[in-house]
Amino acid sequence: MDLDSKASDRPLDPRCLLTPEAGNSEGKTFQDTVGFPVAVVLPAAGCGERMGLSTPKQFCTFLNRPLISYTIETFERISWIRTIVVVVAKESYDQMLQVIHSFHHTKVKVVEGGTTRHRSIFNGLQAFHESTEGPSLIRPKVVIIHDAVRPFVEEDFLLKITLAAKEQGASGAIRPLVSTVIATTSEGYLDHSLERAKYRASEMPQGFLYDIIYQAYQRCSEFDFEFGTECLHLALQYSGTNAKLIEGPPTLWKVTYKRDLAAAESVIKEALSLSACLISGTIAETVALASHLQKNLAANSMTVDVYQSATGNNELLSKTRNFIQISASEESLLEISEMVKVLEEKNHALLYPVVIVWVHLYMSEESSRRQKADELSSFMDLATKAKQGNVLLYGIHVVHSKVPELWEKCAERLSQITESLIRDRNPAFTGQLLQA
Amino acid sequence: MDLDSKASDRPLDPRCLLTPEAGNSEGKTFQDTVGFPVAVVLPAAGCGERMGLSTPKQFCTFLNRPLISYTIETFERISWIRTIVVVVAKESYDQMLQVIHSFHHTKVKVVEGGTTRHRSIFNGLQAFHESTEGPSLIRPKVVIIHDAVRPFVEEDFLLKITLAAKEQGASGAIRPLVSTVIATTSEGYLDHSLERAKYRASEMPQGFLYDIIYQAYQRCSEFDFEFGTECLHLALQYSGTNAKLIEGPPTLWKVTYKRDLAAAESVIKEALSLSACLISGTIAETVALASHLQKNLAANSMTVDVYQSATGNNELLSKTRNFIQISASEESLLEISEMVKVLEEKNHALLYPVVIVWVHLYMSEESSRRQKADELSSFMDLATKAKQGNVLLYGIHVVHSKVPELWEKCAERLSQITESLIRDRNPAFTGQLLQA
Repeated sequence: MDLDSKASDRPLDPRCLLTPEAGNSEGKTFQDTVGFPVAVVLPAAGCGERMGLSTPKQFCTFLNRPLISYTIETFERISWIRTIVVVVAKESYDQMLQVIHSFHHTKVKVVEGGTTRHRSIFNGLQAFHESTEGPSLIRPKVVIIHDAVRPFVEEDFLLKITLAAKEQGASGAIRPLVSTVIATTSEGYLDHSLERAKYRASEMPQGFLYDIIYQAYQRCSEFDFEFGTECLHLALQYSGTNAKLIEGPPTLWKVTYKRDLAAAESVIKEALSLSACLISGTIAETVALASHLQKNLAANSMTVDVYQSATGNNELLSKTRNFIQISASEESLLEISEMVKVLEEKNHALLYPVVIVWVHLYMSEESSRRQKADELSSFMDLATKAKQGNVLLYGIHVVHSKVPELWEKCAERLSQITESLIRDRNPAFTGQLLQA
Repeated sequence: MDLDSKASDRPLDPRCLLTPEAGNSEGKTFQDTVGFPVAVVLPAAGCGERMGLSTPKQFCTFLNRPLISYTIETFERISWIRTIVVVVAKESYDQMLQVIHSFHHTKVKVVEGGTTRHRSIFNGLQAFHESTEGPSLIRPKVVIIHDAVRPFVEEDFLLKITLAAKEQGASGAIRPLVSTVIATTSEGYLDHSLERAKYRASEMPQGFLYDIIYQAYQRCSEFDFEFGTECLHLALQYSGTNAKLIEGPPTLWKVTYKRDLAAAESVIKEALSLSACLISGTIAETVALASHLQKNLAANSMTVDVYQSATGNNELLSKTRNFIQISASEESLLEISEMVKVLEEKNHALLYPVVIVWVHLYMSEESSRRQKADELSSFMDLATKAKQGNVLLYGIHVVHSKVPELWEKCAERLSQITESLIRDRNPAFTGQLLQA
């Protein structure tokens, strides 16, 4: 049976999905607060049996990127975190290097794991000590230990963990118990249930003064290395440090089962779909349609900024990963092609797929028929090329109607299709010309 | 920190998403085994604060149906379960009756809940006692208590719980602990961590001899009613019954957060996408294309049965909720229209949306251009009507090519689009004519 908790399932902060610059003003404040070196150890050597998949879960991919890269990104964008040590199984070593290369991760050092979780974490910690393999990393004051498969940890919570670790020697995230915990008899019967108010679930991240956790690992027994799971326990037993426990948000949740990958993907997709940039053009009909679309999308929690032209508005790129261009001109495909080029030059789709919805407004049914077939193949070609750079290009044809109710209905359909294209980010439908 | 478990995240049994008849052969065996009346109480009076949504989570909707209806369906299709008592908050009473009406639930009795979970469960149990409000339901030998928000419980596990309850008086599902459980000091520091091997998470479902759990609720204190959560604990304390604990599968998981709704939807969508029925027509080109499509979809875990015609093959309907019709004829829209009619008559889309993908093969680019514009509006009209009956109709145009590599590529694209349409079941794209 499950217990109730008042904590809400807070949505992911959408800023964290934009360029690192976007969050920097806050980052600087944090950096002032954290005046000492902080590093992260991410054990990622598990084999993911629970997932029911052949790929270890940290390497499972959604939106073209493995889970571990999302987690790395979360730490990499935090200015006061200097180094991220990722500990992987020997057989995943090359794959991990490839991930770092593909997604331009810069703060990561890859270390080979051990046979158990504790051995892997210890290997990660040892990367900060001199070795025969070359110079060590700068030894941190505080080290954060986190799971590679909890991608949604937030900066403010990491700051709490870090400062508490600095102050107390050790700190850890806790959550209310989701289920009642019961003790069982050896025959498989209920012995008693625990009084829930006294207990918590221990989660990740955990923070430690580097010297304290390193010493604990140096002193702990083979039994601990083999069967232990809890770093807080080692710090207590071998360094005499009682960790400060801090209640974390539900977003700390761990991707464990296959269904959790779908959940993680939905969290990312939702955060990516909170805003869009709409290029309206200048003629009355496209401007009116833009305003309609803006209103409808806002009603579904998508904030849409409208601009008459994309030209010279390069800063738009840092604001969103969704673009809608409305155009009545036959040359509008050129503008789209230009936009794709700029996005690629700016590397804007490196980490998350960018969506461009091209809305082509025709003034008559007849002109629509004439052009549609001609456009189709050049649009498909452009979309195929764009997709290689992680830009998803979709087209929607709209035929203008002078009958207000018909036009209203058409704009409504346009909004639904546009919203679905942005939310789904489905690569199978790029290059299609849909009909609103 | 999390513990490892070897249990895999088993996919949902796809049979349970088809018509109840499909699972009946097994159902009968079970009914022979369970020779006594069994009922279910589903407390569903929670307000869903944790979800971060205004709707209580049991009434949150995906694929056009509220979560509670999926859970009810799970029990309703089990022949040896006679009655399902759903306990709802007063303000949700009418909404619940509407759900029962809309989705043709037949075994459900709705009861008003109390101010706490235990009070609600007791209200549910009292529905089996005579009252001034009319005749009671037939009193069950065993009553299963389950959460309305755990829709994926399976028949074989319910059978284990039921038989153990009959034998031992009480039984309950357990799972390994997901996180280490720790005791905290009153100042928020780590006191100690529990030895995980001795403890389990208590989950749902739980089963009881009706008289035992009813007696426990009659005897328990106001304090229990107010602050207790664990039925197993009441059975132990007030009826002296130690529950038999049975390890359940990960599919027992509870929909708690908004992200869990996305996970639940993905589980259902995956189960719905395991099979399709393909109508190939009789001409060489469509038959060849069908065979290609079948092979490509099979490579992505979709079993496709191919038939030359749908006519007279009404039993196809009980096999799948996905239909692909390939046709080179100009009249093929009539066949689609006929298929929609049959699906509606058979009520095949009552519980899950049915997908029809209409693949129109043109022998030349020229004939495609000529017809596309004409077809578009009649296809859109048909799709709009079909959608009202929960049938999702999509079109794909394919132009035959005599160049083998081009044709190969086209068939590949057709497979990708078809697979995406079936897996996504996106209502925003119905009526579109896509291009392979």
